[in-house]
Amino acid sequence: MKKNISRALLALTIAGAGVLSAVQPTVALAAVPAQQKTQVPGYYRMQLGGFEVTALYDGYVNIDNKLLKGINGKDAKVLLDKMFLDSTNGVQTAVNAYLINTGTNLVLVDSGAAKCFGPTLGGIQNNIRAAGYTPEQIDTVLLTHLHADHSCGINEQGKMVFPNAVVYASKADADYWLSPEIAAKAPEEAKGLFQMAQDSVAPYQAANHFKVYSPGDTLIAGVEVVPTPGHTPGHASYLFSAKGQELLIWGDIVHSHSIQFAQPEIAMEFDTDSKRAIETRKKLFADVAKKKLWIGGAHLPFPGLGHVAIDGKGYRWVPVEYSPVMVAAGK
Amino acid sequence: MKKNISRALLALTIAGAGVLSAVQPTVALAAVPAQQKTQVPGYYRMQLGGFEVTALYDGYVNIDNKLLKGINGKDAKVLLDKMFLDSTNGVQTAVNAYLINTGTNLVLVDSGAAKCFGPTLGGIQNNIRAAGYTPEQIDTVLLTHLHADHSCGINEQGKMVFPNAVVYASKADADYWLSPEIAAKAPEEAKGLFQMAQDSVAPYQAANHFKVYSPGDTLIAGVEVVPTPGHTPGHASYLFSAKGQELLIWGDIVHSHSIQFAQPEIAMEFDTDSKRAIETRKKLFADVAKKKLWIGGAHLPFPGLGHVAIDGKGYRWVPVEYSPVMVAAGK
Repeated sequence: MKKNISRALLALTIAGAGVLSAVQPTVALAAVPAQQKTQVPGYYRMQLGGFEVTALYDGYVNIDNKLLKGINGKDAKVLLDKMFLDSTNGVQTAVNAYLINTGTNLVLVDSGAAKCFGPTLGGIQNNIRAAGYTPEQIDTVLLTHLHADHSCGINEQGKMVFPNAVVYASKADADYWLSPEIAAKAPEEAKGLFQMAQDSVAPYQAANHFKVYSPGDTLIAGVEVVPTPGHTPGHASYLFSAKGQELLIWGDIVHSHSIQFAQPEIAMEFDTDSKRAIETRKKLFADVAKKKLWIGGAHLPFPGLGHVAIDGKGYRWVPVEYSPVMVAAGK
Repeated sequence: MKKNISRALLALTIAGAGVLSAVQPTVALAAVPAQQKTQVPGYYRMQLGGFEVTALYDGYVNIDNKLLKGINGKDAKVLLDKMFLDSTNGVQTAVNAYLINTGTNLVLVDSGAAKCFGPTLGGIQNNIRAAGYTPEQIDTVLLTHLHADHSCGINEQGKMVFPNAVVYASKADADYWLSPEIAAKAPEEAKGLFQMAQDSVAPYQAANHFKVYSPGDTLIAGVEVVPTPGHTPGHASYLFSAKGQELLIWGDIVHSHSIQFAQPEIAMEFDTDSKRAIETRKKLFADVAKKKLWIGGAHLPFPGLGHVAIDGKGYRWVPVEYSPVMVAAGK
């Protein structure tokens, strides 16, 4: 209080020079408060028909341009400059997950990296709580694929983070990433990825909470599996439909929004099958642009919700605009 | 607790069908929690050199396309469709303000509409608190102009919301909006705007906390006034500079990002002088695109921070990407 009083007195003294007088350099009224340096919580909510969609921020990784295949550094920089992105230490790339309350199920799509990829990631649990839910309330976890930045978040020190959830993965991805035989034959630098996938799901397997699905299987009401293979053998997207509104959560269809929307033929080093990943990306871009689907992308700028628009020979990303939650709103 | 136990038991029963078995339709484990329907708080923070910038969301207004001058409804719809925006009930348009902690001053640029324009606006005070500050800590308020959605937020029931702040407006705007003579001659439907401007600043005038500046005046360290007239006679932008990084908070240079970046020659009904507003917009777009300045815009999609890029014959808006606060980061 003392501080405020002295600030007020000072303000009067300074302002005493008078209205409409020439402005004099302002003296600080008091020591300003410390910079807060905190960021707004990493969740963003929107209504999709009767479904409530909450985007969750896990954190970020810096991706080196050299991991992009089919483009040289100079051409990459031109596209990055167009988006005013600095790539000196790699391009800051978000890791997102999505929580959908369908009214019947509370569904988490992907789960972030937890501690698997260092300290800039692992925010999903905190952001689930910031968004008003608890991990125990989630009944369904849908994994787009079994890479560590999508699956590690379901596991904490060997225990289930979502003890009341059934975790789903595609059979093609489970057959690959959970196979001890394939892992044994993998290059040394890739062995860690297999181990992290196996560790992630282990407590759910032990509790019979892990389920593998095949193409055409129905998982839960309001969600359709859309196979989008290439990045991994069983990479899958999930189409949520509610009252005529549709959201496709597409996992890792795009790793670099500044480059791959303009040039869908650019691939990512981590693709299991780059050629197939490119085919899938091109087909999906054309399809979702035509259908004007809402998209949720794991590595698009948080919240990663928006639309894909045709732009010349390529495409462009149109992010959602921040808005209050419009419960009765249309598209 | 009871609920969680029954959920867990149910989960075991369902999952008991076995790992790797064909997926069966999942039964909801229990009644899901209610949809939260709350939105993340309306603030967003970024570091600009040694300055801390916090964007603040006041709310939104729906702007009818008919208020845009120089474009017909059909052409407007083409541009709105490109951004996947619905204009059935007008286009949802954000109202933003900015709080800058320079280390020497805590500066608010614009203050939102408070209760002047209805219940979808008036969030600035709450969002200042959500961002970790209090209105009493603010020592400087810079108004880009004296329209009600920028100035009403400084006043609550006739009292100063920022009792320890000096409020600054340009002389040209004060001479216009605070003139009883000009107000008396204004068309009936515009009289309210004059009244709201006068009411907003009245308690600051009474306390000698209101200052009017002229072109070339220095206000506080780290900020330069950039006259950007047209929308109002003394419309001003504020250029914040810190350690070689620059942010121009440009007020109402743009009301419709989907239309005016592509076609800067489209004006807004509320412009005092449309012709001059268009000249200012064209000149500023060219300038900030060339200089790659950070922009803060009062009616750009929240947080309204980003850059202007050249795009064919027009321009395009490139919004900032959500990121943790990078205290030591570069641009």
